[in-house]
Amino acid sequence: MAGKYAIGVDYGTNSVRALVVDVATGAEIGTAVYDYPSGDAGILLDPSDPHLARQHPGDYINGFVASVAAAVQQAAATPGFAVDDVVGIGIDTTGSTPIPVNADGVALALTDQFRDNLAAQAWLWKDHTAHAEALEITELATQQQRPYLAKCGGTYSSEWYWSKILHCLRTAPDVAAATHTWVELCDFVPAYITGTTDPNRMARGICAAGHKALYSEQWGGLPANEFLDALEDGLSRFRYTTTALPSNRVAGQLTPEVAAQVGLKPGVTVAVGAFDAHMGAVGAGCGKGALVKIIGTSTCDCMVAPLEQELPDVPGLCGIVPESVLPGMYGLEAGQSAVGDIFNWFVRYLSPAAYGNDGAAHEKLTAEAAKLKPGESGLLALDWNNGNRTILVDPRLSGLLVGQTLHTTAPEVYRALVEATAFGALTIINRLEEYGVKVEQVINCGGIAEKNPVVMQIYADVCNRPMRISRSAQTCALGAAVFGAVAAGAYATVEEAQAAMTGLKATEYQPDPASAATYARLYRQYKTLHDAFGGVSNGQGVGAVMKELIAIREAVRKG
Amino acid sequence: MAGKYAIGVDYGTNSVRALVVDVATGAEIGTAVYDYPSGDAGILLDPSDPHLARQHPGDYINGFVASVAAAVQQAAATPGFAVDDVVGIGIDTTGSTPIPVNADGVALALTDQFRDNLAAQAWLWKDHTAHAEALEITELATQQQRPYLAKCGGTYSSEWYWSKILHCLRTAPDVAAATHTWVELCDFVPAYITGTTDPNRMARGICAAGHKALYSEQWGGLPANEFLDALEDGLSRFRYTTTALPSNRVAGQLTPEVAAQVGLKPGVTVAVGAFDAHMGAVGAGCGKGALVKIIGTSTCDCMVAPLEQELPDVPGLCGIVPESVLPGMYGLEAGQSAVGDIFNWFVRYLSPAAYGNDGAAHEKLTAEAAKLKPGESGLLALDWNNGNRTILVDPRLSGLLVGQTLHTTAPEVYRALVEATAFGALTIINRLEEYGVKVEQVINCGGIAEKNPVVMQIYADVCNRPMRISRSAQTCALGAAVFGAVAAGAYATVEEAQAAMTGLKATEYQPDPASAATYARLYRQYKTLHDAFGGVSNGQGVGAVMKELIAIREAVRKG
Repeated sequence: MAGKYAIGVDYGTNSVRALVVDVATGAEIGTAVYDYPSGDAGILLDPSDPHLARQHPGDYINGFVASVAAAVQQAAATPGFAVDDVVGIGIDTTGSTPIPVNADGVALALTDQFRDNLAAQAWLWKDHTAHAEALEITELATQQQRPYLAKCGGTYSSEWYWSKILHCLRTAPDVAAATHTWVELCDFVPAYITGTTDPNRMARGICAAGHKALYSEQWGGLPANEFLDALEDGLSRFRYTTTALPSNRVAGQLTPEVAAQVGLKPGVTVAVGAFDAHMGAVGAGCGKGALVKIIGTSTCDCMVAPLEQELPDVPGLCGIVPESVLPGMYGLEAGQSAVGDIFNWFVRYLSPAAYGNDGAAHEKLTAEAAKLKPGESGLLALDWNNGNRTILVDPRLSGLLVGQTLHTTAPEVYRALVEATAFGALTIINRLEEYGVKVEQVINCGGIAEKNPVVMQIYADVCNRPMRISRSAQTCALGAAVFGAVAAGAYATVEEAQAAMTGLKATEYQPDPASAATYARLYRQYKTLHDAFGGVSNGQGVGAVMKELIAIREAVRKG
Repeated sequence: MAGKYAIGVDYGTNSVRALVVDVATGAEIGTAVYDYPSGDAGILLDPSDPHLARQHPGDYINGFVASVAAAVQQAAATPGFAVDDVVGIGIDTTGSTPIPVNADGVALALTDQFRDNLAAQAWLWKDHTAHAEALEITELATQQQRPYLAKCGGTYSSEWYWSKILHCLRTAPDVAAATHTWVELCDFVPAYITGTTDPNRMARGICAAGHKALYSEQWGGLPANEFLDALEDGLSRFRYTTTALPSNRVAGQLTPEVAAQVGLKPGVTVAVGAFDAHMGAVGAGCGKGALVKIIGTSTCDCMVAPLEQELPDVPGLCGIVPESVLPGMYGLEAGQSAVGDIFNWFVRYLSPAAYGNDGAAHEKLTAEAAKLKPGESGLLALDWNNGNRTILVDPRLSGLLVGQTLHTTAPEVYRALVEATAFGALTIINRLEEYGVKVEQVINCGGIAEKNPVVMQIYADVCNRPMRISRSAQTCALGAAVFGAVAAGAYATVEEAQAAMTGLKATEYQPDPASAATYARLYRQYKTLHDAFGGVSNGQGVGAVMKELIAIREAVRKG
């Protein structure tokens, strides 16, 4: 493998990153980031509808060219590197982010007719305009006793493929009429860079299809035409019939045109795309018993379980899909709809001048929050500012903060928000274990895991487990590079590639027993609010929450 | 009455104000404010206990001298005014704010031994250190089937006289041992300025005694010795046996020493003191069917009802006391533990730089909040950052905010906090009416009512009633002056003095039907949270709150 390189390209919510990786060692020798220029940090918003979040497909194409070209140029400074030694490219993206394309395989938003039409853009994962349609899909599948939802937690989400397509069909019929097919972003990019202009021949990744589009070999692929047309006449026109593929498979070869733009040779192998979290889990060293948490604006939590294991359907889990993470394993996906986004919201909208702006405010608030003991503020929050993905699968939930006095400070609120996301993380772990998926270790990656020891210590204390950190700061892009290497034949299996290319940091966060005990007490109150506001309970226990928070605060202050 | 003047002295939470008033016309011809110099804006705090709030009695004495002297000096510029024409002085204060005094009638905190002892200071109304004792008093009275609580809503408060005295007896026995009696601030000032050094001869106002110290002629004054000693041996030592008096009665005459300090003649009549809200209600024009709301850091809500009327005991009302507001009428007191304090908390701790500081931030946030429609933010708050006085009588409650998204702004939160206090106000009105006390009009006074039309419009819309505003900006001090005039014999009755000296502004706030309809819908959700977190319900309905808030938001945004 010596002297071979793979490139991972990771499409995040606000930017895309390219990473050039040494296939033999995992050394990261070139990287570049491209911020999406459109909208608000890359996101097209509608002031009249806070649920709407779209992106311009042109940003993805320009971002590929700019980030890969710059990363390759940086790699070229490494002795021994040659452009011709790049053997494979892997692509990971946010999702479910479906894009409407026409019969020529061109994104509608790249045509003059639809350039400024919000419905013709990429429907970003966190777009929640289709909540009514999600509910309908869940209801119809339940009513018709379809098996479709069993693998995605029993509830279809407004963030997913069919909800968005159905909403578009109803609210933007002109866009729907011009659409030949809807392509997930993780399939759109490989199709574009390999020149796959026939929409019927674009490689569809099993990861996106299985987790978000109700695709399963059990029922012959996507949901039946009758089911789709019962939702809305004509919806079945968007039912593709190709076989979805895992990411160790080849999507195509880099076109001469794109190769020239990025400074690579034409014909480089491009792997089938997948979601960022799934490839990130692979880049973090995901294997049996390891929960990988990618903590960024939101989290994705991934696990694998051997295909031989009898896996029950886990309620609220966003998906259990064969080979969506690793070939030969079930991929299990969970997640929190907002984590870093909640901290960013607080800093952007409610942080006083004394803490500075943006990054400085995060740092100062974190430093002040670190001085507080668990329970000392008397505050408790729910981490639902962007809804709840796992375990409630309900976008129509919202944030909650309780326990404020006349002395409550900004760092106290900031810490309560961090703790809320940790309680949300624990709720996911508990749900996995309740259904027999033993979480033997937790590996964290993503910006927050990398850069914020205070947050990681709170996660260790709340979850009462060690928190490990992936060695690479770019696990998603690294995972994509792993698949690029495997698709190109550099390794026979993903596990072999992982062994060579991925690893953990030496630092790990150990739970503090006293903090863990206080958090266990606080978590009972979190769970009471979670179940009451989430509609799981009938509200019992709510009347005791404020008093219990005061009792915990007093116990902590007395020491 | 022409050419006669009365002075009202109003002790607030952070300052004291003196007002010189023309007895014939109510014209306010001199006023001055003195900010308490001690502690944090006059409040002595304990960083280890957010429940503690004390004040230094020396601030009250210095404040009397400084404010009255300055007000008199200002009045002297009015043609026809002569110092010798000042006939009476009335005093109103916050409360229940008991002060321990020794056998010489001197506040312990003014002696060398106890100067720096927090337990020897005035225990400010919003001190909640005695919450355990309040619970005990309620439990013992209930268990022994004592009638004491029937007139104060069925629950004794940590803010009140006996809770604080009992807590001091247990936690600061040295202070308790040196204390001859505990004197309410509204009795302490008249005693001091009239030179009443014998603690057994100090005039005790019926207002403070009846509303806060469980005083009633029905059971022969204060609670029985056996009851007090069952709470803690020795507590009965603080049971005074004098008859408590309404404020049309005379407490004494101004001493030559104090008269010289303030520039008045010795011997001016000083009326019996009462609480700020009660005298404020009188200064606002309180009479049958009128609810007077004094809206400041907290609110006090006062009503009167004829002594002939059969009044039921109203659960949660802080008090129903004969003659505590007007002679010949029951005085009814309710209140919200924090209103302006909640807005100030938000500005001080959570308001971003873009809105400026302090007063400017209030103005800018109010202006931005005014642009929002009811329900548009999707937010809902509980106004319990300082506990709930009426109708739950529970200091161990806390603030709550629900409905946050990733786009929630500071003005949205600010408006939600304003609305929460309005919902709290409506809850009090509803409780009064449920028990047969018809609220025929609402008269508002205090700084917020005076200066903030946005808040007043929200109150009108939430309560779906007109909001009237008292003509005077200083209703408490004006009411005190009314009592000074009556005690001095300038009028035969308080009503006659009110007719001459008080009135309403021309501006009143009318409810907007569309806003009122949205607020009626939001109030149902407020009441669900109120009852669930307040322990009134078992939590039913909580699971629907977030979704209903979203439904209201969507309805409002669609128009």
